[in-house]
Amino acid sequence: MPTYTAPTKDMAFVLHDVLKISESDVPGYSDLDAEFTSAILEEAGKITSEVLAPLNIVGDREGCRLENGLVYTPTGFKEAFNQVCEAEWPGLATDPEYGGQGLPYLIGNAVGEMFGSSNQAFAMYQGLTNGAYASIHAHGTDEQKAKYLPKMTNCEWTGTMNLTEPHCGTDLGLMRTKAEPQADGSYKLSGQKIFISAGDHDLSDNIIHLVLAKIVGGPEGIKGVSLFIVPKVMVNDDGSLGARNGVSVGSIEEKMGIHGNSTCVLNYDEATGYLLGDEHKGMRAMFTMMNHARLGVGLQGLAQAEVAYQNAVIYAKDRLQGRAVTGVENPNGPADPLIVHPDIRRSLMDQKSFVEGARAFLMWGAALLDRAHRMDDKEADGLISLLTPVIKGFLTDVGYDMTVKAQQVYGGHGYIEEQGMSQFTRDARIAMIYEGANGVQALDLVGRKLAADGGKHVMAFFEMVKTFIKENEGNEALKADFLEPLKAASKDLQAASMYFMQVGMKNPNHALAGSNDFMHLFGHVCLGLMWGQMAKAASEALEGGASDTEFYETKLATGRYYMARQLPATGMHLARIQSGADTVMALDAESF
Amino acid sequence: MPTYTAPTKDMAFVLHDVLKISESDVPGYSDLDAEFTSAILEEAGKITSEVLAPLNIVGDREGCRLENGLVYTPTGFKEAFNQVCEAEWPGLATDPEYGGQGLPYLIGNAVGEMFGSSNQAFAMYQGLTNGAYASIHAHGTDEQKAKYLPKMTNCEWTGTMNLTEPHCGTDLGLMRTKAEPQADGSYKLSGQKIFISAGDHDLSDNIIHLVLAKIVGGPEGIKGVSLFIVPKVMVNDDGSLGARNGVSVGSIEEKMGIHGNSTCVLNYDEATGYLLGDEHKGMRAMFTMMNHARLGVGLQGLAQAEVAYQNAVIYAKDRLQGRAVTGVENPNGPADPLIVHPDIRRSLMDQKSFVEGARAFLMWGAALLDRAHRMDDKEADGLISLLTPVIKGFLTDVGYDMTVKAQQVYGGHGYIEEQGMSQFTRDARIAMIYEGANGVQALDLVGRKLAADGGKHVMAFFEMVKTFIKENEGNEALKADFLEPLKAASKDLQAASMYFMQVGMKNPNHALAGSNDFMHLFGHVCLGLMWGQMAKAASEALEGGASDTEFYETKLATGRYYMARQLPATGMHLARIQSGADTVMALDAESF
Repeated sequence: MPTYTAPTKDMAFVLHDVLKISESDVPGYSDLDAEFTSAILEEAGKITSEVLAPLNIVGDREGCRLENGLVYTPTGFKEAFNQVCEAEWPGLATDPEYGGQGLPYLIGNAVGEMFGSSNQAFAMYQGLTNGAYASIHAHGTDEQKAKYLPKMTNCEWTGTMNLTEPHCGTDLGLMRTKAEPQADGSYKLSGQKIFISAGDHDLSDNIIHLVLAKIVGGPEGIKGVSLFIVPKVMVNDDGSLGARNGVSVGSIEEKMGIHGNSTCVLNYDEATGYLLGDEHKGMRAMFTMMNHARLGVGLQGLAQAEVAYQNAVIYAKDRLQGRAVTGVENPNGPADPLIVHPDIRRSLMDQKSFVEGARAFLMWGAALLDRAHRMDDKEADGLISLLTPVIKGFLTDVGYDMTVKAQQVYGGHGYIEEQGMSQFTRDARIAMIYEGANGVQALDLVGRKLAADGGKHVMAFFEMVKTFIKENEGNEALKADFLEPLKAASKDLQAASMYFMQVGMKNPNHALAGSNDFMHLFGHVCLGLMWGQMAKAASEALEGGASDTEFYETKLATGRYYMARQLPATGMHLARIQSGADTVMALDAESF
Repeated sequence: MPTYTAPTKDMAFVLHDVLKISESDVPGYSDLDAEFTSAILEEAGKITSEVLAPLNIVGDREGCRLENGLVYTPTGFKEAFNQVCEAEWPGLATDPEYGGQGLPYLIGNAVGEMFGSSNQAFAMYQGLTNGAYASIHAHGTDEQKAKYLPKMTNCEWTGTMNLTEPHCGTDLGLMRTKAEPQADGSYKLSGQKIFISAGDHDLSDNIIHLVLAKIVGGPEGIKGVSLFIVPKVMVNDDGSLGARNGVSVGSIEEKMGIHGNSTCVLNYDEATGYLLGDEHKGMRAMFTMMNHARLGVGLQGLAQAEVAYQNAVIYAKDRLQGRAVTGVENPNGPADPLIVHPDIRRSLMDQKSFVEGARAFLMWGAALLDRAHRMDDKEADGLISLLTPVIKGFLTDVGYDMTVKAQQVYGGHGYIEEQGMSQFTRDARIAMIYEGANGVQALDLVGRKLAADGGKHVMAFFEMVKTFIKENEGNEALKADFLEPLKAASKDLQAASMYFMQVGMKNPNHALAGSNDFMHLFGHVCLGLMWGQMAKAASEALEGGASDTEFYETKLATGRYYMARQLPATGMHLARIQSGADTVMALDAESF
């Protein structure tokens, strides 16, 4: 069975050596000294590795079951959920006004990685609650907030997000679920929603569904969509629970993975709902939640790659097969461990250099979000808005590929469910799809974010890369191995942006045909920048006489691998982008 | 539910327009005129699309079951197997001396693609029989051939290949299964074999297991391995069946995919076996079969990509979501079909240009094999031996990626098992692993095949590319769009080979660290060459006044896409290769 060990040391390195958070001016960061963060990370590491990780394969095997209209989660999930709630993990980074602990999102992100690595299907129950919480927190009335948020913090209630219908996913303007206004100000919702993660279960007393629907008589299409709070069980004025509302589970979907999470078809039959935010402004309210959720999904890409990598390393050290081509390394054994073979190393280094780069990228993103929220910093807000589709799309695409690589290290044993490596790929696969399929992320990046505010944020990004290179040119540990490859990659990204500006005006297809490559090109430059920053921190630590030289030298070596072996992808992406839309759009639909 | 339509027209294009087989001097090819091949392909298309394809998802859902020591295949498999056998498909390309129809392997390959696309798990029962048949045919005594081959041709008996044990897959020298010589010249085999595809089932009266084992008292390691014929049921001298032999099913493995094929743990307990080929020369006998089988697995990479692509196209034309950015294309519908969106096109073109290129590559490979076998052509033999790891490794790696892309077109619906797109990725995943994991293919290519016969075969390949470019320089339809990219890609491949020659001598790790990239670089050049040849054939057909202009123009457009969008990968692979082993091997095993 696979195991999981929380990478607390790597996390601490990014928090303290790279981001130097306790020196930051973001409110709340000054409390985050190494001792404090270490205590949190160690505790989270403990519960995730000891309680949640062993349940991961249980959830995969058992799945959820629907009996007499009630959904039951796999064996052990309820007990684990109670344990997680008693330790107050769900309220770690939520508003103290409603019972949360109010820690920065940056810390929530680090802990979230551990939950995702140890048991993605389990973590999603809380993940969806977080999304619903964020929407109510941002758009709810004081009364709504007081009514729902405390119980969504202390786990009495959980939440869901209801967008998709059988005939519409991305194109929500086609939505058919309708909301009929009632005399008391509430609405009656009717319609069918599908693919509702954590849609029903036995973990909490109530489920607060956030549901997109069209108010009868409102505008056509996307402009007539509003967001509603629809509790599974009605809530009385005193906060106690009343009768069941008109929402029922049609079925649980049979999926490729995340079997431990109940993905439901939910049928709304004159269910009572309460408008959240303004009439017909449902998409705006939803987007507040979605940008946040997209970072969370990007985190899943990292989280699955991390746990799959850990297990690939264990197997590569343990499994004896063949001999090193440069001479026997395990003379007392019948064969050498897999890890001596260069192609196995290549695969492990691909994985290691990705997960560590991705972790730094996500933590930087989380810090930008904290800066945006806690200091109302418009530049940080613009930058994280630009980077969000890159984080979601690039990290889940590559994260998935990494789980496939980890599985491959196991050879035939990777294909057998008993070993658990297949589950990591099957679970990771969903992250490329939900919260906006990655093609939609690429479209969001190229069609919307790139040119937002006159292209100001992407220019700021380029400036940041340029400044980093300039400021560190004197550092010989960085120059050839890090700064030059980063400069070349950044130049490719600038050339691609320029190409879009030149041709996209004439024919937007030229830009959109390259959107997926642009997202990947951007992702590589971001990870290149992260490795530059990590290498800087590591080389400074070594110069400063840090005692753990092996740790910092390993960081430098891992970074050199990424720069030498992964960054050359930027040239390929640029070439594809610059070939334009002609070959992409040449055929009639009938010719496929 | 997914559907399958055999791509008979595309196959005929490669056979007749590109390979021009009826003009070939390979014995047996002169019979293969367009009318004859069309009759075969249409018939095979019919049985695969109508009988096997509908059973694909049934096999995935039901899997195989073990009851009282007997294995049962999914509902409908036995009836379908009988139908396939009655139509004599298994004997299509086998030796007429033992009841086969003796058609070239090239035709067997085309039909094999259809079987693989429609139902890989089902096709494997016959695929394993083919492997066992080939070994007995190559290494058996006349008596053994007479005893086993006719019944393996007419489907009375099937076959398996038994290599892997719990502690050894690639490194077969570690094998523990032993063979005790008996007074009558037979052996008693004892040991455990795992991952035995089609290891037991209810489709045939008997199963002929080919088993690797060590003769007691023989040499240590790989030099002491011999190959044995071990029938599931003993065969009397008159060919009738006798008692059960000492081989039993320990369990059926639970796998990520190919659930319809019974992957068994087989326990040998003093089972009677007969030496096949020479004592201690088991690996040689096994390799005869394996090179053949590796082409078959490469074919699975194409086959799954093809059927997944077909279904992605159907969905992309059918599913209405969003509007084309360049203006509404389906004004009478609520939205435009997915296929109007450039990023969906990009994905479909990736898939289309891969499957058509891969098909040409495999057919060329099959024709080389026929030339090698039927004319004893050493150059063809050397070339297909060089290309075999490329076909196996590159086509299954990329074939898998293509099934993931096809699944992605479906959005959330691709993650639901009901739609069947998940099955294509789960089934395709195994092809990267079995018959030598793709890392082993890359090692075989760089460590063995590249330098075989003094590097003569890779030089012949480069010469072939050069000649093709030179001979077609006057063709304006080819020059800029095909010949120039091919030239650049081939130059990258030559530079990589040169790099290996220069540094590999000093330190083999420098070559092996780039082996996976080299395999992919080689694969791209092969597909580039295939597209050059297909473009040439299409442009000649158009110049010759062919009536089906749309077909040939589509070929040219699809080829242009591959050259513009896929071939730029060669530069990235070269850069990685030339970065050498230093960053790959930098860390101690403990630092992972």
